[in-house]
Amino acid sequence: MNKTGPVVALSGGVGGAKLALGLYRILPPHTLTVVANTGDDFEHLGLSISPDIDTLLYTLSGQDNPELGWGRRAETWTFMAALDKLGGETWFRLGDGDLATHVERTRRLAAGEPLSVVTEEFCRRFGIAAKLLPMSDQNVRTRLETDRGRLDFQDYFVRLRCEPAVRRLEFAGSEAARPHPDFIAALADPDLRAVVVCPSNPFISIDPILAITGVRAALQACRAPVVAVSPIIGGKAVKGPTAKMMEELGLPVGAAAVARHYSDFLDLYVADEADRGAEARLDLPVVFASTLMVTIEDREALARAVLDAADRIRA
Amino acid sequence: MNKTGPVVALSGGVGGAKLALGLYRILPPHTLTVVANTGDDFEHLGLSISPDIDTLLYTLSGQDNPELGWGRRAETWTFMAALDKLGGETWFRLGDGDLATHVERTRRLAAGEPLSVVTEEFCRRFGIAAKLLPMSDQNVRTRLETDRGRLDFQDYFVRLRCEPAVRRLEFAGSEAARPHPDFIAALADPDLRAVVVCPSNPFISIDPILAITGVRAALQACRAPVVAVSPIIGGKAVKGPTAKMMEELGLPVGAAAVARHYSDFLDLYVADEADRGAEARLDLPVVFASTLMVTIEDREALARAVLDAADRIRA
Repeated sequence: MNKTGPVVALSGGVGGAKLALGLYRILPPHTLTVVANTGDDFEHLGLSISPDIDTLLYTLSGQDNPELGWGRRAETWTFMAALDKLGGETWFRLGDGDLATHVERTRRLAAGEPLSVVTEEFCRRFGIAAKLLPMSDQNVRTRLETDRGRLDFQDYFVRLRCEPAVRRLEFAGSEAARPHPDFIAALADPDLRAVVVCPSNPFISIDPILAITGVRAALQACRAPVVAVSPIIGGKAVKGPTAKMMEELGLPVGAAAVARHYSDFLDLYVADEADRGAEARLDLPVVFASTLMVTIEDREALARAVLDAADRIRA
Repeated sequence: MNKTGPVVALSGGVGGAKLALGLYRILPPHTLTVVANTGDDFEHLGLSISPDIDTLLYTLSGQDNPELGWGRRAETWTFMAALDKLGGETWFRLGDGDLATHVERTRRLAAGEPLSVVTEEFCRRFGIAAKLLPMSDQNVRTRLETDRGRLDFQDYFVRLRCEPAVRRLEFAGSEAARPHPDFIAALADPDLRAVVVCPSNPFISIDPILAITGVRAALQACRAPVVAVSPIIGGKAVKGPTAKMMEELGLPVGAAAVARHYSDFLDLYVADEADRGAEARLDLPVVFASTLMVTIEDREALARAVLDAADRIRA
């Protein structure tokens, strides 16, 4: 079995990017393809912002901000302070350095470059030896039906701090959008070692990717093992509204429910040691690992555990 | 004679803003109207930038950067450094705080607000007790025919550092543009105390204002004294390409030639002490003052000298 074969990871922002970084660090250069959720993308202050792509760009290039847990290292905030003084909208925090990414992306998109080409150029500039792909070059926009009405994603996520109760999610544009061709080609690659669904929020980070026509079928047809890592540890989400959303959507809150959510294409599930027992409720192989990623070593160790488990199931 | 009557100043960027600040400080609040050149305005990185308006905004609100001589006080440059790393265009230096002005202006213009309304709101936010008016709400763009071809203003001014030899200037859009109605109303105000043409570059800062249909006629018809302050001291420009341009345009380099440039509407000329003798070559009253503005006291003293001379000529 080819232990140097390519690996595909599906990821949202912060949580997913931690495992993506672990995979990136233990794999040979140019072996990893990270497919990023772009359902969170939005236009703000005239700028095209792709939060999950940016988190992955900063994380994979070592420019992420460890204190904040989002944004860029050594960031300054002069722009926000000046914008506030001018009465501009400041609910979405944009650091001065981060702003360059949005301004340059917006300029390139306006000049006709697809998002994937802009992202590839940014990876090259940042020296990232992985392929970072938006799930699609067409716009898909996550919207939520909540007890406070229909909300755009960032309104829900940032402005209202995930407070509204979610009734239903919608990925506007997902039916017309095409998955990025390199994403589908990677899934069909006979040398593919594994597909890793990162421990991102299933509903707002992974479902938008799965909603694009052709993605689910390609995952089902994929000959390499598809492995998901649980974003739930001991019945709780490490960060963000995953557990709260499961409750609101009427799902049992727990690691097993996430695996069932992916059951139509999943070959293997990696749950946290704290959730031993989850396997009793699932009809697919489950392995247990320490999934809480605090240090860089945690990220690498989890990445190794995930790939080892995938290699075993394939063998 | 009404020594508290309104005053109108025509100004470009840095040099003109110094005298505008002097006038602002010695006049009662809401007495001064500054009409700003917008021929330098341009679109860059998707942003609408109005360099002279911004210099006036920062100068009148005490936010100007005394070390650089342009831009904002306590500025940071994280954006530029990050943009450079992404391969973006960095020849036009945009500070992090300055960027907020451009982003918010661009957003408001895109939402349909005229430039004058955006500028008025910025003045209000910055606590500026003067009226700052763009010369027009329509676009006028300065272009230069040079020995290196036809150039957009900022290409000539910033990117090529005024190196090309100028053959001719053009103010695209000036015929279709209308002067801001408050500008024309201020010139027709019977209480108007004086019109001050600030010591800005006549060709690139004042001529664009004069080129707008109706402005010259309104200045000629104005019953208040129209006073210009020489931007030339001892045959040299304090800053910028004024003297170089006079040479290239075939004009005698000196204070007198600037007064002659304005002769169709000028009532009085204020030249520097160093240029005594200039009056011999002019058929209008000339007064001499110290026109080099280094300290804030210099700005106020020159503003007083200009208004006193205007008051005397009117009396």
